[in-house]
Amino acid sequence: MMEERHPYSATLLIYCEDRSGIISSVTDFINEHDGNIIYLDQYVDAEENTFYMRIEWELEKFIISPDKIDLIFKESLAKKFQMSYRLYFSDEKIRMALFVSKLPHCLYDILSRCQSGEWDVEIPLIISNHEYLKPVAEKFGIDFYYFPITPENKREQEEKEIELLRSLNIDFIVLARYMQIITDDFIKSFPERIINIHHSFLPAFPGAKPYHSAHKRGVKIIGATSHYVTADLDEGPIIEQDIARVTHNDSVKDLIRKGRDLEKIVLSRAIHNHFKRKTLVDKNRTIVFN
Amino acid sequence: MMEERHPYSATLLIYCEDRSGIISSVTDFINEHDGNIIYLDQYVDAEENTFYMRIEWELEKFIISPDKIDLIFKESLAKKFQMSYRLYFSDEKIRMALFVSKLPHCLYDILSRCQSGEWDVEIPLIISNHEYLKPVAEKFGIDFYYFPITPENKREQEEKEIELLRSLNIDFIVLARYMQIITDDFIKSFPERIINIHHSFLPAFPGAKPYHSAHKRGVKIIGATSHYVTADLDEGPIIEQDIARVTHNDSVKDLIRKGRDLEKIVLSRAIHNHFKRKTLVDKNRTIVFN
Amino acid sequence: MMEERHPYSATLLIYCEDRSGIISSVTDFINEHDGNIIYLDQYVDAEENTFYMRIEWELEKFIISPDKIDLIFKESLAKKFQMSYRLYFSDEKIRMALFVSKLPHCLYDILSRCQSGEWDVEIPLIISNHEYLKPVAEKFGIDFYYFPITPENKREQEEKEIELLRSLNIDFIVLARYMQIITDDFIKSFPERIINIHHSFLPAFPGAKPYHSAHKRGVKIIGATSHYVTADLDEGPIIEQDIARVTHNDSVKDLIRKGRDLEKIVLSRAIHNHFKRKTLVDKNRTIVFN
Amino acid sequence: MMEERHPYSATLLIYCEDRSGIISSVTDFINEHDGNIIYLDQYVDAEENTFYMRIEWELEKFIISPDKIDLIFKESLAKKFQMSYRLYFSDEKIRMALFVSKLPHCLYDILSRCQSGEWDVEIPLIISNHEYLKPVAEKFGIDFYYFPITPENKREQEEKEIELLRSLNIDFIVLARYMQIITDDFIKSFPERIINIHHSFLPAFPGAKPYHSAHKRGVKIIGATSHYVTADLDEGPIIEQDIARVTHNDSVKDLIRKGRDLEKIVLSRAIHNHFKRKTLVDKNRTIVFN
Repeated sequence: MMEERHPYSATLLIYCEDRSGIISSVTDFINEHDGNIIYLDQYVDAEENTFYMRIEWELEKFIISPDKIDLIFKESLAKKFQMSYRLYFSDEKIRMALFVSKLPHCLYDILSRCQSGEWDVEIPLIISNHEYLKPVAEKFGIDFYYFPITPENKREQEEKEIELLRSLNIDFIVLARYMQIITDDFIKSFPERIINIHHSFLPAFPGAKPYHSAHKRGVKIIGATSHYVTADLDEGPIIEQDIARVTHNDSVKDLIRKGRDLEKIVLSRAIHNHFKRKTLVDKNRTIVFN
Repeated sequence: MMEERHPYSATLLIYCEDRSGIISSVTDFINEHDGNIIYLDQYVDAEENTFYMRIEWELEKFIISPDKIDLIFKESLAKKFQMSYRLYFSDEKIRMALFVSKLPHCLYDILSRCQSGEWDVEIPLIISNHEYLKPVAEKFGIDFYYFPITPENKREQEEKEIELLRSLNIDFIVLARYMQIITDDFIKSFPERIINIHHSFLPAFPGAKPYHSAHKRGVKIIGATSHYVTADLDEGPIIEQDIARVTHNDSVKDLIRKGRDLEKIVLSRAIHNHFKRKTLVDKNRTIVFN
Repeated sequence: MMEERHPYSATLLIYCEDRSGIISSVTDFINEHDGNIIYLDQYVDAEENTFYMRIEWELEKFIISPDKIDLIFKESLAKKFQMSYRLYFSDEKIRMALFVSKLPHCLYDILSRCQSGEWDVEIPLIISNHEYLKPVAEKFGIDFYYFPITPENKREQEEKEIELLRSLNIDFIVLARYMQIITDDFIKSFPERIINIHHSFLPAFPGAKPYHSAHKRGVKIIGATSHYVTADLDEGPIIEQDIARVTHNDSVKDLIRKGRDLEKIVLSRAIHNHFKRKTLVDKNRTIVFN
Repeated sequence: MMEERHPYSATLLIYCEDRSGIISSVTDFINEHDGNIIYLDQYVDAEENTFYMRIEWELEKFIISPDKIDLIFKESLAKKFQMSYRLYFSDEKIRMALFVSKLPHCLYDILSRCQSGEWDVEIPLIISNHEYLKPVAEKFGIDFYYFPITPENKREQEEKEIELLRSLNIDFIVLARYMQIITDDFIKSFPERIINIHHSFLPAFPGAKPYHSAHKRGVKIIGATSHYVTADLDEGPIIEQDIARVTHNDSVKDLIRKGRDLEKIVLSRAIHNHFKRKTLVDKNRTIVFN
């Protein structure tokens, strides 16, 4: 209702070793089959000699049927240039799982965007290590799963979570102020598909209680950072950051209040970039196509 | 739940002609009666020779009982300095009415803040000229009143609205993307107590369709402006503004999308400043105490 | 000294009606002649169906000699697609003229960047309608020409200026707080090659004394805007804008002080984008390639 | 020439244990002696129970002569409240020393502001561990002292520098991208009077080569931080910070270029706050009065 319908289109996210002729080969491939390119952005990491590209084209007159694009692209181009790539279609409904603990602001923001139609994303479930936000899930009519975590049961609980997420065909996971460290095994099950929000301007103030640290250090600006989750806590590739000015007048409580707005907006921008297929991870950096 | 309880306190917002001795007289008044000042900010408009002050003090040991402060302050100080002032107590629950049309993002943001306990504000009702957002009101358990407006019935409908708002002891009104011009009579019923969000960086692009105008003009930055509503459309005293960068790549749809986040955050900051009693209007400028 | 040497390269700025095959044709053209593409950014204005592109490639192994690229590109591609284009080479030294009046901050900023080697731009002359800043020009060893302007002599003086600018092979002109309206005839002599800085967030507060207007209106944010000069004053295509927060505490003098920093930085960013050949004008919007 | 003359005034910066009656006592002191208060800002650090205040008043009709204010204020108020305080007069010309190495952008920015009259500050000398920027000093007519530093001669050279600075009655020192660690002994000679600019958003990326680290970490925002120098490198109380957005497209060279503008503006804002007597250090936080 909010977002107008886009034309039916396909999107390719590509990366490979850089060499001559990639762009012209890919654009030729689309043109020759009567596809109308509506988006092209590319980036070359000169140090690493790696080529990255996002290209989107309308399928209306494209003479290859959608179910054959993957195979034909692979055979005619991807093999030649040894490309890694992902192919998406605009009519696929993306499915997101939310992990929360006790803080509701990011959760409300995400649910509001989905239910108002601002985002065309399905949320089949919310998972939490507390029952605290169950009423919010109910208010929005979304299934809420309570997985209490203790050091003893963590592995077991995570395995159940993974099973549940897979059974529901979850595409990606958002840790919306989920106050639990997740294990490497869990992360490996959803590589580059778990998005976290950290309530500081990383790499400043990693770990717990960043607003307290920021206040103590007397910074004049606070921040929030959304990143893909990797095995190294708060070290994953950054998708989006933003900041707010503070003064000596701001108490820790004021920083927390100002930070809440930062957190929810930064996280939502990162989620938007992810489900719009605008992101590719390049070692520990996120390419965010414009 | 989110916001810790503050101590029981009183706040004075004062303005008067500037002259020597105002600050010391007011602080003496509080000190002598064993009040503990926890906030003081003042501002002198040198051109207009007007003094503005916000002062807050704990009432725990204050030897004047809360119900007598107004009278005693008036007799001992306000008369002497010919002060205009407002007195507030921290245990008063403020009551806000929301006016909406069809766009839900500001509404969701405000309701989420209230229901999560981030804001300690009551919302007795939502008024709309469409039935479109009734389901949102119901989801959050808030009474929704439908007042369809036509050129013919506008005056009559507004009178009913005013009566309803008064019967519910509404302290202030927020136009959360309410797409109707309200009449001067309505505005006069709630002077400096109606807050609007305009989806541009005022005074640029007043009136309708500012994102279309911004796109056409090729600006590199868009904005949103929250202001008190006065008889002159989009000309009222500004409470808060913020901006976002855009590029030639951004379509009108992109501006609208980026603008939504601006609008809801800017409006919520303005509401927060208002109900925290941080604002005073000085001719057509808003003093926002820090 | 500050800026490392870039490889010897050519840059094409292209625009034309959008159709299939442009990108692949251009990239093929470069690849086939052994050029190494080091930059590509393109943009399609879908409403106007116009294609814009900036492409840069190393010439080291390019088998067409630099003096023949223009002709061969025109014959093999530009005619076919009815392209407008400009071709630049990285070893061309760009020549900038500065127009100033009395305010020195933008002038100092520009001269400092050039003399420190931050910018690889020549400044053959400074033109002014006052003698006020002559000592600054002398300090930096740059020729200073004094052209006093009166309503009577304006046309005549401008003609002399144009002659002088042409005799010195000036590529573009920067109005660094030049407090004179220049005539349409002058503008037509340097189309899309005159850059102005206006000390407000356009289109808010066009014309004279914008900081006074901003103060009176009580804005919470001030701005500066750099744009190409067109016949319509303060209406030309915007290259760059930026803003700074202000409060009720800020006097007009404070706005002017904060604005000075905005003005010089915004103007310098616009100049940088211009001489790095990153800009194309699309009706009244500036495409700034990233 | 740029900055209008202010009225002749005195400024007190005060801090002491917080207790009732400080504000009214100080304002009474000024009012009773016919001083006209033109600025008052105060702050209470509730955790530390410390009171901080900046107050400025016109001396035109003040009945205590300037040379007696210090003594009378001390006897009548400072002793009673055990205040630490500093007293300044608006007609004192402040004297700043600059330390530089090879990078000129901050140096040019500071010199331009002083020579254009934007700042009313004297620069009796520039000190450097290289001869590189001597021509810039000469261009602006400022004495340049070359103190080459080796591990062996550091202590000896610093002693000569201190002697020189003292002989010239230097009020404060600015390290304008001075690429040398200064010793604790030197710092102790100018407590809270040495301002440094660090080219990152501290506490992120302390130490050398922060832009390289920022690029490697893939941040989406870079920053600059100006702070008072203390014995702990990059750990001193922050005066001012600002940021700029970057993308995956920005190389280390781009970050350095964008960072230069940040550095010079952030450093100049910090210097302005310092010489306008707007700063007080509270443990490791800087109170910047508005």
